[in-house]
Amino acid sequence: MKRIGVLTSGGDAPGMNACVRAVVRTALYHGLEVYGIMRGYSGLIKGEIVRLDTTAVANVVQRGGTILKSARSQKFMTREGREEAYNQLVHHGIEGLVAIGGNGTFTGAELFEREFGIPTVGAPGTIDNDLFGTDYTIGYDTAVNTALEAIDKIRDTADSHDRAFFIEVMGRDSGYIAIPCAIGSGAEIALVPEQVQSIDSIIETLQRARGRQKSSLIVIVAEGEEEGNATHIATQVKDAIPELDARVTVIGHIQRGGAPSAADRLLASQIGIAAVEGLINGMRSVMAGIVDRKLVYTPFHDCITRKKPLNHSFVRMIDILST
Amino acid sequence: MKRIGVLTSGGDAPGMNACVRAVVRTALYHGLEVYGIMRGYSGLIKGEIVRLDTTAVANVVQRGGTILKSARSQKFMTREGREEAYNQLVHHGIEGLVAIGGNGTFTGAELFEREFGIPTVGAPGTIDNDLFGTDYTIGYDTAVNTALEAIDKIRDTADSHDRAFFIEVMGRDSGYIAIPCAIGSGAEIALVPEQVQSIDSIIETLQRARGRQKSSLIVIVAEGEEEGNATHIATQVKDAIPELDARVTVIGHIQRGGAPSAADRLLASQIGIAAVEGLINGMRSVMAGIVDRKLVYTPFHDCITRKKPLNHSFVRMIDILST
Amino acid sequence: MKRIGVLTSGGDAPGMNACVRAVVRTALYHGLEVYGIMRGYSGLIKGEIVRLDTTAVANVVQRGGTILKSARSQKFMTREGREEAYNQLVHHGIEGLVAIGGNGTFTGAELFEREFGIPTVGAPGTIDNDLFGTDYTIGYDTAVNTALEAIDKIRDTADSHDRAFFIEVMGRDSGYIAIPCAIGSGAEIALVPEQVQSIDSIIETLQRARGRQKSSLIVIVAEGEEEGNATHIATQVKDAIPELDARVTVIGHIQRGGAPSAADRLLASQIGIAAVEGLINGMRSVMAGIVDRKLVYTPFHDCITRKKPLNHSFVRMIDILST
Amino acid sequence: MKRIGVLTSGGDAPGMNACVRAVVRTALYHGLEVYGIMRGYSGLIKGEIVRLDTTAVANVVQRGGTILKSARSQKFMTREGREEAYNQLVHHGIEGLVAIGGNGTFTGAELFEREFGIPTVGAPGTIDNDLFGTDYTIGYDTAVNTALEAIDKIRDTADSHDRAFFIEVMGRDSGYIAIPCAIGSGAEIALVPEQVQSIDSIIETLQRARGRQKSSLIVIVAEGEEEGNATHIATQVKDAIPELDARVTVIGHIQRGGAPSAADRLLASQIGIAAVEGLINGMRSVMAGIVDRKLVYTPFHDCITRKKPLNHSFVRMIDILST
Repeated sequence: MKRIGVLTSGGDAPGMNACVRAVVRTALYHGLEVYGIMRGYSGLIKGEIVRLDTTAVANVVQRGGTILKSARSQKFMTREGREEAYNQLVHHGIEGLVAIGGNGTFTGAELFEREFGIPTVGAPGTIDNDLFGTDYTIGYDTAVNTALEAIDKIRDTADSHDRAFFIEVMGRDSGYIAIPCAIGSGAEIALVPEQVQSIDSIIETLQRARGRQKSSLIVIVAEGEEEGNATHIATQVKDAIPELDARVTVIGHIQRGGAPSAADRLLASQIGIAAVEGLINGMRSVMAGIVDRKLVYTPFHDCITRKKPLNHSFVRMIDILST
Repeated sequence: MKRIGVLTSGGDAPGMNACVRAVVRTALYHGLEVYGIMRGYSGLIKGEIVRLDTTAVANVVQRGGTILKSARSQKFMTREGREEAYNQLVHHGIEGLVAIGGNGTFTGAELFEREFGIPTVGAPGTIDNDLFGTDYTIGYDTAVNTALEAIDKIRDTADSHDRAFFIEVMGRDSGYIAIPCAIGSGAEIALVPEQVQSIDSIIETLQRARGRQKSSLIVIVAEGEEEGNATHIATQVKDAIPELDARVTVIGHIQRGGAPSAADRLLASQIGIAAVEGLINGMRSVMAGIVDRKLVYTPFHDCITRKKPLNHSFVRMIDILST
Repeated sequence: MKRIGVLTSGGDAPGMNACVRAVVRTALYHGLEVYGIMRGYSGLIKGEIVRLDTTAVANVVQRGGTILKSARSQKFMTREGREEAYNQLVHHGIEGLVAIGGNGTFTGAELFEREFGIPTVGAPGTIDNDLFGTDYTIGYDTAVNTALEAIDKIRDTADSHDRAFFIEVMGRDSGYIAIPCAIGSGAEIALVPEQVQSIDSIIETLQRARGRQKSSLIVIVAEGEEEGNATHIATQVKDAIPELDARVTVIGHIQRGGAPSAADRLLASQIGIAAVEGLINGMRSVMAGIVDRKLVYTPFHDCITRKKPLNHSFVRMIDILST
Repeated sequence: MKRIGVLTSGGDAPGMNACVRAVVRTALYHGLEVYGIMRGYSGLIKGEIVRLDTTAVANVVQRGGTILKSARSQKFMTREGREEAYNQLVHHGIEGLVAIGGNGTFTGAELFEREFGIPTVGAPGTIDNDLFGTDYTIGYDTAVNTALEAIDKIRDTADSHDRAFFIEVMGRDSGYIAIPCAIGSGAEIALVPEQVQSIDSIIETLQRARGRQKSSLIVIVAEGEEEGNATHIATQVKDAIPELDARVTVIGHIQRGGAPSAADRLLASQIGIAAVEGLINGMRSVMAGIVDRKLVYTPFHDCITRKKPLNHSFVRMIDILST
């Protein structure tokens, strides 16, 4: 292998730039040429491909977003799209790819490899942390810290006014962000897709907390919570406890941005190095991840089809800590 | 005057604690006793009144929210409520008040003084900065910085995905928060109550920006904007420019919390000192403020009835800077 | 067991309060009474012991420092001191202890248990992360993030002026803080106690980086680095490369303070719960820790005498990433 | 005037990039061409001059440091150096300059204008805030906030251990940074060049504070303090009060970096616009500044020779607030 490409795809996540930097530097370290593919598979099809040298990734390790930009590509979902992508790679002499992204990214890469034989090693870049094959995804630690800092500020108001706040954090399919936010903010409840709580039990928990003279109450709601989003739940609770001064806030897009945390920079760097060295060693259609502090490569197929279970002991923790 | 009280009222604002601390320390410095009245006028009526010494305000200068808590009181709006409040003050031997809050707070205090003769000096504590009689209110600088830091994070995503973001910041009656956020974030447009822009002109400005190859667009919307809130405006813009990948985010309650900025701690301290020294010097029904770096006392009546105009040169700045 | 005590000892670390909160809430959850012992073993000897209820630990999860205060106690190193401590515990009816701290804390607790039979379960509270028996100590993640944010700021100046900065971070015996700071800041070199580099090799690495047109250079130095501290090393480098515009900065005490990160709040909560449940289950002279995401109890003796080795792959990473 | 240049000179300051952006965008808005001169006067002499368009300053408003880099130039202090600089400007067709920096920058610009007739308008870019002709300099507000956030962290440790901390902040000739840091952190004393306090009086103040049961003490020392730096003062205090557990920390270079605060971005933008519009209107050898919220142009001569006095009421405030 002489020349590889790197792209970011799907939603951006803090640490993607640290990962791109690691990919570039590792490729150069091992004597490879490296090209940046702009806007994910979309830019690959269009040939938005630029040579990257060491200074191209200087001073980006601390930046949020992705200097390679990201996009979702309908066309790459088609055989014709992938053929155009393949022709671009052949044209540029690129023999392998590092794809930084999530499930959708890896699904496309696996198909691409099967059809056209271009090997890809994946890097888990998503704030959601819902990928099998790695304890943590790149961007997750930063997103949790960003959400928690926001909740800390909201609690100032909750305490000052003896209010209840229903706070929605990201997490379409999992409570990975909601759970540490709830534990770290001293919330009374975390509502997560993995463990449905009825409205009645939510109301009961809040009534009990009020009985213990808690002046302010925090409920953390994952956006994918089955009982509905924060506004929906707050409305039902207010119906049941009319004297509750309840507010709703959605933390929203700030969770995707910002300078990556130390843990995310470290993880992104480890995985960027591992992805390139995996390619060099002949790997294909696997994702580099860290499990129990050890580097592991997991087939894309497993990453896509298997579910990483939420640690249920965390839910018990919230019960104890809100005593 | 031997004994004074201090209360916080209305929405909480970062720096209120720094102001309470300054009130307490200044009172003690001048040999007065000082009492904290919990939950604003509501706690005053109920007699939630506690003696404060120097250690009661140790280590609070950096804390958001208000250690005296805040509440809105319907009862203080009635003559009976104010009479109960007066009786509480007589009972505790409190001869003067420092009231930290906004327009509603000062309206109540002025009435109270007229009816019962208890002098109050006010401190402008609100993130909105819409009070006449001071260049800046306590909490405003922090709120702007909090909003701007959030917008910085959102721009990471906007840039990575070539998106437009419509971002709603606080400001029911004014663009004081929206304007510096727009200038400081490199936004294309700021929509503020003071200067209505038609949807057509908004669309035209965004079309022009797209013509200049701007890949990401930021529109800052004050919550009190006449054309409607961020969601409403974004919907109309998307109708006119369907190819725009537009998102909406509401910064929300985080703008009220957090550790106060250096400027807010300094301002809160200056005003806290001035409020107590104003009381000692026989002032009543005035608000302490800083105008052009000088301490001024403005009658409550003027604070309530006069409007502090937004500097219109700021709107021109956004035009120039988004060139 | 009916009544337990909790204390913090040694240098303070962010997350200690989150741990104290978890200890208190878990004790109450299981029907125990819980007492806070002020100023570590020093306060224990003097009987500075206060009952803690659930509100005593409300709103502290996000605070740096320790509400129980900390101190080093010479007297507890003596048999007489420990006897006084024992008498205090008997007097207060306290039957078990949770001690949050580091090696010195556990050494004292083990001796105390052997002599007087009072069981202690330890919680690893130190920013240094150099304790055997847990992957991470409480406070470590926050300290690294604080140092890294400071280094990010310094790099603004380094880049603007094409300067070299020698930056000293904490770590008397280990490079645990220095290594992620170096990887996360894009540093050219990390100098750590575990892997001595000669001045000649440092100079050679920097010369090579200059040859690659790197305009600014960052060297991270752990305070316990064998070749000497940052100032000493910078002086020698400047002698060898006189044209280098080199500066030294010591990050210093800020690394011990600040609101704990999400990871530290979570870890502190897990360990606080585990410590109390360990006591209830009859454990003594063990430290609760998390290894590979699983809760483990390690005998104090092992924590004190065994060394947790630095992951040497990290040093190789810096070589690659500074390509 | 058809074509102007912009440079940054002297120590970098947060907000310089926001100012460069405003200069570029304003020039383009008024139909001028604009060139960036790298590394201040040094790059001017060497002809390191690049055309800037609107995208060159996209996404820099929030970045610390200066994208134009900065340097100090001995050569520009000589007549020959300035002649080479002049030849470069003639060669590039540049007819006017915006120079962002401090006293040294303006001294050079004034001389250059007198000798070669190239008009310069200055922008006050320095964290020190010691320039006559503007209430605040670009970077000052950020530097104070950075220092104060660091001091907040240190106070966590001071409180936890009942310690005294002597903390040195920047300010070679003035207490502009030290004073708000002291007020905002609840310090007992601020030692500033403008108001010398004897060691005896420092010791007396600290003894009094200890008598009031203050457990932790903070002393803020400006680096230019006449009685010596923080270490020197701490040593003398420890000699006098041996039982004091005193530590020293120097905040250092972090005060120069980081994302600019909202106030600095606004100020930098206002001044950048004013500088270009001043040049267009025929101004020369003046600095654009904001005094009492109004734009003023002050002759370089006055900026250099006159002193902006520190508001002495601030020193009295510290006395009151540390009661």
